[in-house]
Amino acid sequence: MTIVAKNLHPTVTTGPLPASRKIFVPGELHPDIRVPMRQISLHPTSGEPPVTVYDSSGPYTIEGADISIEQGLAALRRDWVLARGDVEPYEGRRVRPEDNGFASGDRLTPEFPTKRQPLRAKDGKAVTQLAYARAGIVTPEMEFIAIRENLGRKAQAGTMLRDGESFGAHIPDHVTPEFVRQEIAAGRAIIPANINHPESEPMIIGRNFLVKINANIGNSAVTSSMAEEVEKMVWAARWGADTVMDLSTGRNIHNIREWIVRNSPLPIGTVPLYQALEKVEGIAESLTWEIYRDTLIEQAEQGVDYFTIHAGVRLHYIPLTVNRVTGIVSRGGSIMAKWCLHHHRESFLYEHFEEICDICRAYDVSFSLGDGLRPGSIADANDAAQFAELETLGELTRIAWAKDCQMMIEGPGHVPMHKIKENMDKQLAVCGEAPFYTLGPLTTDIAPGYDHITSGIGAAMIGWFGTAMLCYVTPKEHLGLPDRNDVKTGVITYKIAAHAADLAKGHPAARIRDDALSRARFEFRWEDQFNLSLDPETARSFHDETLPKEAHKVAHFCSMCGPKFCSMRISHDIRSEAQKEGLEAMAARYRDGGDLYVEVSSIEAPGA
Amino acid sequence: MTIVAKNLHPTVTTGPLPASRKIFVPGELHPDIRVPMRQISLHPTSGEPPVTVYDSSGPYTIEGADISIEQGLAALRRDWVLARGDVEPYEGRRVRPEDNGFASGDRLTPEFPTKRQPLRAKDGKAVTQLAYARAGIVTPEMEFIAIRENLGRKAQAGTMLRDGESFGAHIPDHVTPEFVRQEIAAGRAIIPANINHPESEPMIIGRNFLVKINANIGNSAVTSSMAEEVEKMVWAARWGADTVMDLSTGRNIHNIREWIVRNSPLPIGTVPLYQALEKVEGIAESLTWEIYRDTLIEQAEQGVDYFTIHAGVRLHYIPLTVNRVTGIVSRGGSIMAKWCLHHHRESFLYEHFEEICDICRAYDVSFSLGDGLRPGSIADANDAAQFAELETLGELTRIAWAKDCQMMIEGPGHVPMHKIKENMDKQLAVCGEAPFYTLGPLTTDIAPGYDHITSGIGAAMIGWFGTAMLCYVTPKEHLGLPDRNDVKTGVITYKIAAHAADLAKGHPAARIRDDALSRARFEFRWEDQFNLSLDPETARSFHDETLPKEAHKVAHFCSMCGPKFCSMRISHDIRSEAQKEGLEAMAARYRDGGDLYVEVSSIEAPGA
Repeated sequence: MTIVAKNLHPTVTTGPLPASRKIFVPGELHPDIRVPMRQISLHPTSGEPPVTVYDSSGPYTIEGADISIEQGLAALRRDWVLARGDVEPYEGRRVRPEDNGFASGDRLTPEFPTKRQPLRAKDGKAVTQLAYARAGIVTPEMEFIAIRENLGRKAQAGTMLRDGESFGAHIPDHVTPEFVRQEIAAGRAIIPANINHPESEPMIIGRNFLVKINANIGNSAVTSSMAEEVEKMVWAARWGADTVMDLSTGRNIHNIREWIVRNSPLPIGTVPLYQALEKVEGIAESLTWEIYRDTLIEQAEQGVDYFTIHAGVRLHYIPLTVNRVTGIVSRGGSIMAKWCLHHHRESFLYEHFEEICDICRAYDVSFSLGDGLRPGSIADANDAAQFAELETLGELTRIAWAKDCQMMIEGPGHVPMHKIKENMDKQLAVCGEAPFYTLGPLTTDIAPGYDHITSGIGAAMIGWFGTAMLCYVTPKEHLGLPDRNDVKTGVITYKIAAHAADLAKGHPAARIRDDALSRARFEFRWEDQFNLSLDPETARSFHDETLPKEAHKVAHFCSMCGPKFCSMRISHDIRSEAQKEGLEAMAARYRDGGDLYVEVSSIEAPGA
Repeated sequence: MTIVAKNLHPTVTTGPLPASRKIFVPGELHPDIRVPMRQISLHPTSGEPPVTVYDSSGPYTIEGADISIEQGLAALRRDWVLARGDVEPYEGRRVRPEDNGFASGDRLTPEFPTKRQPLRAKDGKAVTQLAYARAGIVTPEMEFIAIRENLGRKAQAGTMLRDGESFGAHIPDHVTPEFVRQEIAAGRAIIPANINHPESEPMIIGRNFLVKINANIGNSAVTSSMAEEVEKMVWAARWGADTVMDLSTGRNIHNIREWIVRNSPLPIGTVPLYQALEKVEGIAESLTWEIYRDTLIEQAEQGVDYFTIHAGVRLHYIPLTVNRVTGIVSRGGSIMAKWCLHHHRESFLYEHFEEICDICRAYDVSFSLGDGLRPGSIADANDAAQFAELETLGELTRIAWAKDCQMMIEGPGHVPMHKIKENMDKQLAVCGEAPFYTLGPLTTDIAPGYDHITSGIGAAMIGWFGTAMLCYVTPKEHLGLPDRNDVKTGVITYKIAAHAADLAKGHPAARIRDDALSRARFEFRWEDQFNLSLDPETARSFHDETLPKEAHKVAHFCSMCGPKFCSMRISHDIRSEAQKEGLEAMAARYRDGGDLYVEVSSIEAPGA
């Protein structure tokens, strides 16, 4: 339901999901941390405890939470950051007209009401989670994540099955803060947590943790407003997005982003090149390192948690794309390619990469190295251009690591099923196990309007193979800008892909929810089945289309098969029969049951 | 659009898809056969020929076709069947009140207006495509299929790439009628083609052919009518279903099925046990072999093309299901289990299997051996009960083959990704490469309302691994009876899965449509992009939500990125730049481009 958040516009969706309440688990190393989780209560007849699930939705789903979009969320991490004693507040960059595409008057999105002084590292220090991890420090962020990822595992202690194929991932039975530190130190995982985004709840992206999903939002020159984008962020978080990328273009980029960041419990990612291009009126050739650099600082001061940077698109790779079916389909990649070609120069992103690292380490902005040459069609998958760029991404990863910067790598795109694993294997080898962050991949080109599905197939598979975060694709992909409903469809589809991957990798806690829902299904606890599902509202409404009455919520059938043909109802009859006559007897008959066999004359299989 | 078909109710959806016309390719061995295909014409600026796609939609999509639901479709195959001289018309079984659940008066669905005498084999002959194939006869059905499956391959001759991983499938560059015969003779493929369903267009189900999909329709005791079911069948065919299963329960089963079969260009499958159970008022214990046998003949005379028969559910397997999380989830499986347990007898389906074969061989009804013990939850996947039944299905396959009966095997169900391939490999080994026909599998239990997606992931994978036909799952799975929209969503989702599988298997013609659509996308031929997609109406409407004007149909951008950020537009600029300056020069610079490199001090990857 949409509720007007107190005393203001814009409004966002608030309130808990059905049968759910938010609980907070305290830290041990850091007693002041409180890790949010969602507890789904089951019907008393189940005789089962509530099911606890990972909850990225933020304060918006707390019963009766006092939400004020114009105040923003509480600065959860502020004290942790200050306590480290390695940052200082400073005046910060002044907002300029071009930051908002020279929008003015009615066309200018109002500034966010309150302004905090930005923080940055003191005298060149690295204030990244990677730097702390290497120094042996377990930060509050790390313990927060350990508790968060452990979800339900304690309850399962002992009884957990390790059933899966992890393709070399090492998922522990129990995640300790020290394990988190080690994974960060090794570069196998990142915690996107800009010191200027204290409102964010720590989360981790790495192959040995739960598979995460990202939702893209953002207006374009053609459509959408600030209020819509803030609601899209809250809405995406409500349904399970782990991070959000603000891909806004057009005017008001700066102010819209400020509203999003101040209200986001999720790490926020951006592609700084988009805003830089707006500052030069959309003329790629007019881009300069100075304008780009200034944009990085602008966004780092606002609190952007990770930057997509297409530094792997080098001048001499461009010829490799000229005979492709779909050329260059990454926006950032095509802009940089155009710049390189026009000026006949190497990419300024590549040439100034170490300076970019110096900026990121001063705010702990994580890298998401863009795959500017990713394939945009089945025909272009795994081609020379794509893999040439990947080599460069590996080279840049080592530079960033040497600067104590956190690094993940973006991946394709459009890839047929038989070519997906090669992408994962190459990325692990070339990029030293830095986390992989893929868009889909789409497994066919022929279904515009359904690309959440063509890509959900590829996403589930590459997530299983080792991708740490899956960037969602909505039904509007290739056709238009996603609206609120498209965002929900994209998020739910990708939660399915990520969870299917966790199950297949053998994540020890992944099956808890499946089993609880299946027991509810088998016992005709319809309410529990709805409440345990990824989208309780849709599950309930589909059921109620044909059987709306409350009485039907305990009926031992549904309209799919009707009463006489309900296999589950019959299974219960079978169990009582079986109990009557004794399982032992039946089992015995099973063992020696020879007399039940009919003679089968052994017959040859037919020949051609 | 829905058009009232001439001079009658009920109405069905007719008319060609956008920019499409039906063409007919004649046979060579059998000049009278005319194989329907759909030609999608492209915009003149493309300079490309029309794209020809597989077309299972039947006469309903012929421009201005004269459709009369009350007359049914033309008896396309009637002469081919009679020409073989091995069948005879006969009086046939009289319809009894229980055939329609004792419905009467207003509640009785009217009989189909015209009645044809049923055909059956003369004196015990086998009139199956398998019998002919073994005798070295290439039937018209086989040549029809060879032409149909070759789709576009001749156009590609020479240029075809064989890029894929087929896991042991042997897909030829070109399908000959003789190849079809050999695959049928070997039992690796089936042609469901009851001699009493001459309206059907021949199609093949086998691992070395295009992956097929089935759509389930049928009313339940709770909802739906004959008119709705006929339209669902036509609608499913329109969007690409290859076969339809009529899973009707409740009253009027006989008459509803007659309307469906007489109007269906697709093979029709049923689960005869459902109607048999209705005949005994839904009391499983009251079922007898005689009632079941009579139902098989009733349906064989009507023209049902394949029977799902749960003969693998044996008494001594039932104890294996008692401790499952979701027991027995197959309707037919649970009914037979209940019968076995109650009577303490072996299944009459198992004991009378050879007699069932004798009925099927007299009408050429194909078998679809039901997996009555398939898992209904992730927890129960690949368990002892499931694989014990599979062994029995292998044993029954050999019996059916010895009787010249065509055989396919049904598969799960709910299976996590890492356990999917084991299902395919075991089935191939145990059932002598008889075609596998799977339901999904669903890769997680936690998304009721989205099970077309949870299962589409598993379907694409198992299709790649070798499953010959994928049974769709709609968004209503577990919750209710699918309506017309759910049927479309299920069919499109499964066309995606089947096509993704064909691509990954390396089917030589599969990529033609992807490449054509991607070229259209890259050249901003929006109309072509819509028309080449699986669902042109949805693609167009999504695009037009934000950019409805006709002018936008040639615009070099869409609302997703807007003009300045359209990577494809920029790619075209890059190409013209590239052409200006000469690819050769660039390529050269690429080869020796050392001067473009910046020095990278080689740095160690970080240690833990």
